[in-house]
Amino acid sequence: MTREDGRAADELRPVTITRNWLDHAQGSCLIEFGKTKVLCAASASEGVPRWRKGSGLGWVTAEYAMLPQATHDRSARESVKGRIGGRTHEISRLVGRSLRMAIDYKALGENTITIDCDVLQADGGTRTAAITGAYVALHDAVEHLRAKGALVGEPLVESVAAISVGIIDGVPLLDLPYVEDVRAETDMNVVMTGSGKFVEVQGTAEGAPFDKAELDALLELAAKGCVDLTRLQTEALGL
Amino acid sequence: MTREDGRAADELRPVTITRNWLDHAQGSCLIEFGKTKVLCAASASEGVPRWRKGSGLGWVTAEYAMLPQATHDRSARESVKGRIGGRTHEISRLVGRSLRMAIDYKALGENTITIDCDVLQADGGTRTAAITGAYVALHDAVEHLRAKGALVGEPLVESVAAISVGIIDGVPLLDLPYVEDVRAETDMNVVMTGSGKFVEVQGTAEGAPFDKAELDALLELAAKGCVDLTRLQTEALGL
Amino acid sequence: MTREDGRAADELRPVTITRNWLDHAQGSCLIEFGKTKVLCAASASEGVPRWRKGSGLGWVTAEYAMLPQATHDRSARESVKGRIGGRTHEISRLVGRSLRMAIDYKALGENTITIDCDVLQADGGTRTAAITGAYVALHDAVEHLRAKGALVGEPLVESVAAISVGIIDGVPLLDLPYVEDVRAETDMNVVMTGSGKFVEVQGTAEGAPFDKAELDALLELAAKGCVDLTRLQTEALGL
Amino acid sequence: MTREDGRAADELRPVTITRNWLDHAQGSCLIEFGKTKVLCAASASEGVPRWRKGSGLGWVTAEYAMLPQATHDRSARESVKGRIGGRTHEISRLVGRSLRMAIDYKALGENTITIDCDVLQADGGTRTAAITGAYVALHDAVEHLRAKGALVGEPLVESVAAISVGIIDGVPLLDLPYVEDVRAETDMNVVMTGSGKFVEVQGTAEGAPFDKAELDALLELAAKGCVDLTRLQTEALGL
Amino acid sequence: MTREDGRAADELRPVTITRNWLDHAQGSCLIEFGKTKVLCAASASEGVPRWRKGSGLGWVTAEYAMLPQATHDRSARESVKGRIGGRTHEISRLVGRSLRMAIDYKALGENTITIDCDVLQADGGTRTAAITGAYVALHDAVEHLRAKGALVGEPLVESVAAISVGIIDGVPLLDLPYVEDVRAETDMNVVMTGSGKFVEVQGTAEGAPFDKAELDALLELAAKGCVDLTRLQTEALGL
Amino acid sequence: MTREDGRAADELRPVTITRNWLDHAQGSCLIEFGKTKVLCAASASEGVPRWRKGSGLGWVTAEYAMLPQATHDRSARESVKGRIGGRTHEISRLVGRSLRMAIDYKALGENTITIDCDVLQADGGTRTAAITGAYVALHDAVEHLRAKGALVGEPLVESVAAISVGIIDGVPLLDLPYVEDVRAETDMNVVMTGSGKFVEVQGTAEGAPFDKAELDALLELAAKGCVDLTRLQTEALGL
Repeated sequence: MTREDGRAADELRPVTITRNWLDHAQGSCLIEFGKTKVLCAASASEGVPRWRKGSGLGWVTAEYAMLPQATHDRSARESVKGRIGGRTHEISRLVGRSLRMAIDYKALGENTITIDCDVLQADGGTRTAAITGAYVALHDAVEHLRAKGALVGEPLVESVAAISVGIIDGVPLLDLPYVEDVRAETDMNVVMTGSGKFVEVQGTAEGAPFDKAELDALLELAAKGCVDLTRLQTEALGL
Repeated sequence: MTREDGRAADELRPVTITRNWLDHAQGSCLIEFGKTKVLCAASASEGVPRWRKGSGLGWVTAEYAMLPQATHDRSARESVKGRIGGRTHEISRLVGRSLRMAIDYKALGENTITIDCDVLQADGGTRTAAITGAYVALHDAVEHLRAKGALVGEPLVESVAAISVGIIDGVPLLDLPYVEDVRAETDMNVVMTGSGKFVEVQGTAEGAPFDKAELDALLELAAKGCVDLTRLQTEALGL
Repeated sequence: MTREDGRAADELRPVTITRNWLDHAQGSCLIEFGKTKVLCAASASEGVPRWRKGSGLGWVTAEYAMLPQATHDRSARESVKGRIGGRTHEISRLVGRSLRMAIDYKALGENTITIDCDVLQADGGTRTAAITGAYVALHDAVEHLRAKGALVGEPLVESVAAISVGIIDGVPLLDLPYVEDVRAETDMNVVMTGSGKFVEVQGTAEGAPFDKAELDALLELAAKGCVDLTRLQTEALGL
Repeated sequence: MTREDGRAADELRPVTITRNWLDHAQGSCLIEFGKTKVLCAASASEGVPRWRKGSGLGWVTAEYAMLPQATHDRSARESVKGRIGGRTHEISRLVGRSLRMAIDYKALGENTITIDCDVLQADGGTRTAAITGAYVALHDAVEHLRAKGALVGEPLVESVAAISVGIIDGVPLLDLPYVEDVRAETDMNVVMTGSGKFVEVQGTAEGAPFDKAELDALLELAAKGCVDLTRLQTEALGL
Repeated sequence: MTREDGRAADELRPVTITRNWLDHAQGSCLIEFGKTKVLCAASASEGVPRWRKGSGLGWVTAEYAMLPQATHDRSARESVKGRIGGRTHEISRLVGRSLRMAIDYKALGENTITIDCDVLQADGGTRTAAITGAYVALHDAVEHLRAKGALVGEPLVESVAAISVGIIDGVPLLDLPYVEDVRAETDMNVVMTGSGKFVEVQGTAEGAPFDKAELDALLELAAKGCVDLTRLQTEALGL
Repeated sequence: MTREDGRAADELRPVTITRNWLDHAQGSCLIEFGKTKVLCAASASEGVPRWRKGSGLGWVTAEYAMLPQATHDRSARESVKGRIGGRTHEISRLVGRSLRMAIDYKALGENTITIDCDVLQADGGTRTAAITGAYVALHDAVEHLRAKGALVGEPLVESVAAISVGIIDGVPLLDLPYVEDVRAETDMNVVMTGSGKFVEVQGTAEGAPFDKAELDALLELAAKGCVDLTRLQTEALGL
């Protein structure tokens, strides 16, 4: 089997991370996985939500959304519809949970970091690009707080990256663009730490249920992709 | 380590499935996993949503919700708040995807089955109880269509059941009630077919990222639980 | 005229009240008027809404809602529609007003009791079953506060019960199921105290306006029904 | 007992009905019960809602609302809050049901009349003024359809009027302004036909439950008030 | 060119301002520009919104809305639709900005004046009638605060009035009713102070872009109209 | 007076227009006015909204929105709040009206072009950058329709560009960034055609009302800026 874009089965699309794409946000990057473009921005502010006040602990939250013209056919704005769709909710929650794994709340102190991941163009893998880019923005928002002397310790305990994997015609493939995504029998999104552990494993049978061997093959592929992404994050951050 | 309710690590809570708990719905059951009570109801109607008309294919969809007094502390009604929360959206989508794996749309013909899973009391595992009970309701809604001669073939290709697993103090445990759920380092919901394949695997690091060995242990435990639930579904359905 | 279910004109459907159907709520019951099933739950919490703080007075409020599959044909969820319908609003207000007549706010002290009446299955008379069951849940929520020593005096000044009456083919009938309800020329819901006084009288001409004699006949029938319901409440509460 | 405004117990406040207060609506009036001012407007349009098409029957519906500055203290706009309150819903439904009693749908033919009752100033009795004025607007909208030759027969089968009654310090009183309304132990709204029959009876215990004798006294008072209002409607319509 | 209603090109429609049309509001008037009727009401309350507390400055805000039957064909209620339309938002903001130019916040002290402009009947120029009437209501709400001794100084620094102008068949015309408004090539709303300065100039090309000479002609016409309206405001206020 | 960024009073900030920034939209550009970045995308689709069907005329509509991190301090998402703010509504309407002036509906035929202007970063002048960039996207969407043979004639009758002007310390200035915008006594947005005529003139007194001389000075400045922007549009489009 040959992939339409000529990639090997375990090869990422070209990934670019343009750090500090915005001027106002405390951390930001434009991350691209092939044609998928996600603008990730992190704002750091002192104080925490009311239910957390006085705990000495910080907070990290995330919102994911898609511009109407990001998709092949324009989709209606959620603000115009007056409600957030289930998919948006689900991915926002996933991004938030994933990023929180990177953080030691105690060391963050009573500060809040809000991460926005806005998909400017979608071509598969938007949630995994969002998580990978969000980590870069989060890192810089933490540095901003450090420079202000607002931190209690070192809140960044891990880096976090994410990639999609799927099975097409029985073959496990890494980083699916839209044309592959719609054909996948099984679809999995995997979030991992820079140290190679799992943060989220979300596997979904699309065409037919899958077995343990298929699951294992996909996880191995995802681990390879996350190693590559971690390296790209490190380079982008100049670490 | 001893569990508060005295169960073995790989033991389900007492599960009861009261079939036909409702009179109007075409299929229904009250399913209980310990103190968790979910009312599952399936309505079967002829016709499909507009975007599917003329395709010859049927449709299955699901909605999950929780009564305000289901939780330990009363929670506000989503209808009163005027919007559905992210958790509700996420679980509704999970239940729908899972049940759709049980169905051959072609054999269903242009009929729609809508499944409602309403949590009357919550004590952990509400989404897995919902999926397990929903299959029973779905089965009976299909039988209703069969009796009316509305089917094209045999739409039930698989049974589907679901269970939660988690790691507490390093020990993998099956079917977590609320008191265990809040303590779990890793939390996983697994949906499987009666034939032992995976439909959904959703693992989330709660306290710390997890490794492949832990993932494998949890999946094995879940597989055991789903075998037990499949047997209880079969009994409830008198098959 | 013979009723479809063989009852006498002044006879209630079989009524069952299963007290403490829930584990978390401070008071609860599943009440059934024939096939109508309403889950009534009361939560008691210390404190009152902001506008009542410092008054020394308690507060009682109620919410009524219907599960989508409660009706013969599935109805859309109000949470999904993003708004509460007029009928739901109207009945929630009726239940709240009715229950407040049972309570001495001063004796309740600055505590709030919230009563949820969720219709699990509807076959006519859902609002009257809701009120009748809500009183049982309210009673137990008050007992819960008493046991905690949170009361100032005896807040339960009256019991409250409710029943529907209507005229079909010129004959006044008690406790109308759905098949009778849709045929009624006049429809009335009556809420009464255990001592036989009126709390709410809501009479509506459905097919034709009604005269004083018809009104009187309906009120007499309702009074008879409320006496029966009051006895069933007393038994359920073991008083 | 003397009323603050010097009226007899069975005396209406000064009522004025200014017919055709608007230019565009097919029927309209500004109705005043003392300081209460309600603008009633009826639009008549050919065609009926989709669920009624082909039935040969017409439709009448109503909406009630209050301007923010109608009340003593400005209240927030429901359009700004994004949702309609329970009270508004409840009264809209009452007005619609009441007006529908005046109409023979068959004679109306497949035409729709929409009645808007907007409270410009509130001083008690807004729903009863709304119903009484709405009948005048409805009448003229019917005449508009008649002039266009759009009617099948005579749709106006009855006139409809409404009044509030209540008990203060044990004395039944007619047509309560705000200062009396807040003090009433029992509050009742009664809708009657021009021929003296009941359309709606809504009695609510405010301070204490009421007995049959009190109910009878209130109904007698309301009947007297409705006779007066019917005469004023007839005069306003020049009949 | 002759105008349908026989007016000269620079002539206002008959304008009437009925001051104190309401009893509860601290300032109010019913303003009519021909058939356009707008009810303007101002409520004055002590205190300011949270974000302004402790500043020593007052606040003025406005809301504009239209009754459903105000238009030739009934339009749906924004409260029923659950959202405010763009036109309503835009005009509310315009009215608020315009009125704020009349006020010295420091002299107003920490008081808030809320102005509601509700269009009872629309025949062109509703926003300009609203602003012109709102000033009268604002004036009286300020006097109310003065009488209570709640003011710090003289907050009314200017009067404000507004008028529409437009070009039809190349001819600039003042105060367009609906029939002219829909035919205008260019449409402009101008808000001016009593001292003849501009507060808002909003010119919109409807049919074709306009040049500087046309703009100048329209502004001159508007200035003439605002002088007339200022005189009518002064008379209505008995100044 | 010297501007903080050293510009002359009649000098634009550096403007860049990156055409075809997106792959899916039929026309798109990223336009930058200094630090202000707006992503403009136009989708062209066959067919028109229902109310325009069969007219032979096309339709152009626009939506403007701002990402939460576009502003100096993060602002809440309108989709999360569940409603669109007045400012967003107002600007969306302005962009739509302005672009419609560029189009001959008859020549467009029954096609619809939807333009989205999403502010990625805001530093003053976002609405004028949006209109200027939207024209470029509109142009390319028209070309897309032309290439498909879907046009009836030449729909582009004019180019459209927009700029903000304002008075600070008595000096009229062109193209205000945020730091100048907040200090302006008068603020004006002007939309002009490539042929030098006015499409929209929106002048607002911020600190004090303005006179005709000030208005004239601002309009002259705006005309100069629009000439410059028109040249930049032409270059970007390679015309």
